[in-house]
Amino acid sequence: MQMLSKKAACDSHGQDSSYFLGWQEYEKNPYHEVQNPNGIIQMGLAENQVGKLSGILFFVLAIRTISYSDSSCSFPLILLNAESWLADNPDVLGLKRDGKSVFKELALFQDYRGMPTFKNLVLVAGSTSANESLMFCLAEPGEAFLLPTPYYPGSNDFKITGRALEDAYEQAKKLNLNVKGVLVTNPSNPLGTTMDRDELNLLIDFAITKKIHIVSDEIYSGTVFDSTSFLSIIEAVTDRNIDDTHELWNRIHMVYSLSKDLGLPGFRVGMIYSNDETVVAAATKMSSFGLVSSQTQFLLTNMLSDKKFTSKYIEENRKRLKSRKEMLVSGLSGAGIE
Amino acid sequence: MQMLSKKAACDSHGQDSSYFLGWQEYEKNPYHEVQNPNGIIQMGLAENQVGKLSGILFFVLAIRTISYSDSSCSFPLILLNAESWLADNPDVLGLKRDGKSVFKELALFQDYRGMPTFKNLVLVAGSTSANESLMFCLAEPGEAFLLPTPYYPGSNDFKITGRALEDAYEQAKKLNLNVKGVLVTNPSNPLGTTMDRDELNLLIDFAITKKIHIVSDEIYSGTVFDSTSFLSIIEAVTDRNIDDTHELWNRIHMVYSLSKDLGLPGFRVGMIYSNDETVVAAATKMSSFGLVSSQTQFLLTNMLSDKKFTSKYIEENRKRLKSRKEMLVSGLSGAGIE
Repeated sequence: MQMLSKKAACDSHGQDSSYFLGWQEYEKNPYHEVQNPNGIIQMGLAENQVGKLSGILFFVLAIRTISYSDSSCSFPLILLNAESWLADNPDVLGLKRDGKSVFKELALFQDYRGMPTFKNLVLVAGSTSANESLMFCLAEPGEAFLLPTPYYPGSNDFKITGRALEDAYEQAKKLNLNVKGVLVTNPSNPLGTTMDRDELNLLIDFAITKKIHIVSDEIYSGTVFDSTSFLSIIEAVTDRNIDDTHELWNRIHMVYSLSKDLGLPGFRVGMIYSNDETVVAAATKMSSFGLVSSQTQFLLTNMLSDKKFTSKYIEENRKRLKSRKEMLVSGLSGAGIE
Repeated sequence: MQMLSKKAACDSHGQDSSYFLGWQEYEKNPYHEVQNPNGIIQMGLAENQVGKLSGILFFVLAIRTISYSDSSCSFPLILLNAESWLADNPDVLGLKRDGKSVFKELALFQDYRGMPTFKNLVLVAGSTSANESLMFCLAEPGEAFLLPTPYYPGSNDFKITGRALEDAYEQAKKLNLNVKGVLVTNPSNPLGTTMDRDELNLLIDFAITKKIHIVSDEIYSGTVFDSTSFLSIIEAVTDRNIDDTHELWNRIHMVYSLSKDLGLPGFRVGMIYSNDETVVAAATKMSSFGLVSSQTQFLLTNMLSDKKFTSKYIEENRKRLKSRKEMLVSGLSGAGIE
């Protein structure tokens, strides 16, 4: 008898993939402009490091490198803003409401029953957990979701076509796989490129024809800075005037988290948005396997319900991302890389 | 084609069980000594509500009821102690180290790689998550773990016997189930009763003979107050002088959490202890699906590394639980219930 499960015994986590090998190399020998100018630069990392722009990201137009400086200078914007916001609102970190401690209330609070006010939303400990729970709701082991490739880290010049979708679907069928849906990341992680309306419409038509789900991971939706082109899958379906009783609505699911747009991966806050009541009910029950710390919920509900803070943040974040991108492009271009 | 998975579509969460129905009834009509003396009393709840003893738990030796008072008086001990500890250590809630903010560091910290210093330990978002990950590591869908019944809420006069174990094993085999292990909760949740050395030895012999795992959920191990009888499965195996190269060691796994002993269910901190390196490695990777908030890790590592605080807490907790139990027993006895 096999003592452990195949999951535990196999090596499908991808820790031997070039992505993780790159990480290991970077950690052994990280680039530093002065102390280690020949070190490795981590370019495959999706992390919100926007802040203190002047002096953070610059280009050493020399031998082999684009650098970002010593990480002690690098400072995600949300964190800069958040720290000053927290200084103005000391009760929030102190776990107080109107000056009185809510420590007890928070310590005992378990969010097993979901949020009655937001009937489409399920809170979980990060988008990894959100994606896992959604998959448990939508598919049996051995069923398939189509994923556009290359994905992470991917290529900039990449569009979903009807042909590619059909080919992938046929290929899955040849492998005797029951295709349950398509999973897209829009905007792309980590590239930030967005799917245009034509692509989204292709997806929608495909999901209608094949009677399958669309899972749209929109974890970077607040970070789009270059254009007004970002369109959520929900908007795209709405704009098609698809009747709200159409069964497609129940097959559209969205994943979001505060790790990327807000730069808070350590706090583990992810969510599922779905129109399917059964999915929401099941995912809410499953959320026991990865609830968000009540301490963190208290901090973030207070911080994010301050609209002045959030709108200032979103605006500033986009501005800085844009400048960063321009700096990177011009640096690369100066080094002869287009 | 079935659009949702069987997991999502079925109703195996037990929300229709008498346990959850009892909860619903309690929530619709909760007992209050003055405002609702004929209301329902929730007796099936495993929650650390020890604190402000005098005046909290008392017995209305009348019509139908044992009551605990208005929940605003009830106050888990850890929280009382914790609040005064936090008042003495303001930097901890304020996310500061030596007066300097560590907000940024925490916000970006993701604990994907586990704890190199504690090679047997995996941290996850609560013991629910710990049990799930362990099961994913130890069994395939369709394989079986034996569970002593009645379990939750169970009976006081309950012992594991060799006969019961053999019977359950044979019954599983007749159902064509591959038995991978036994799962016990010791001390019992929510009764607090402990397994004695004979029971643990029976379990150990059974696991050796059948070559199966033992998963011991010891979430209440810090709450035992009545005797010195609590013995962890790890101690029981150690006391048998089983050679540390014996394969049994790799099949002993423990689950713990801070929800019960420390009364912090809202903070979602659970853990797996295992001697099997492959299980630890796999569970560490799986922990991405339910990591502990870094904000909460910072608070608790500071609080729990204060040994004066923790030892005072454990002692005081036991003392109060014991008084509470004596009060309950004498109240029930006065009402004619033995």
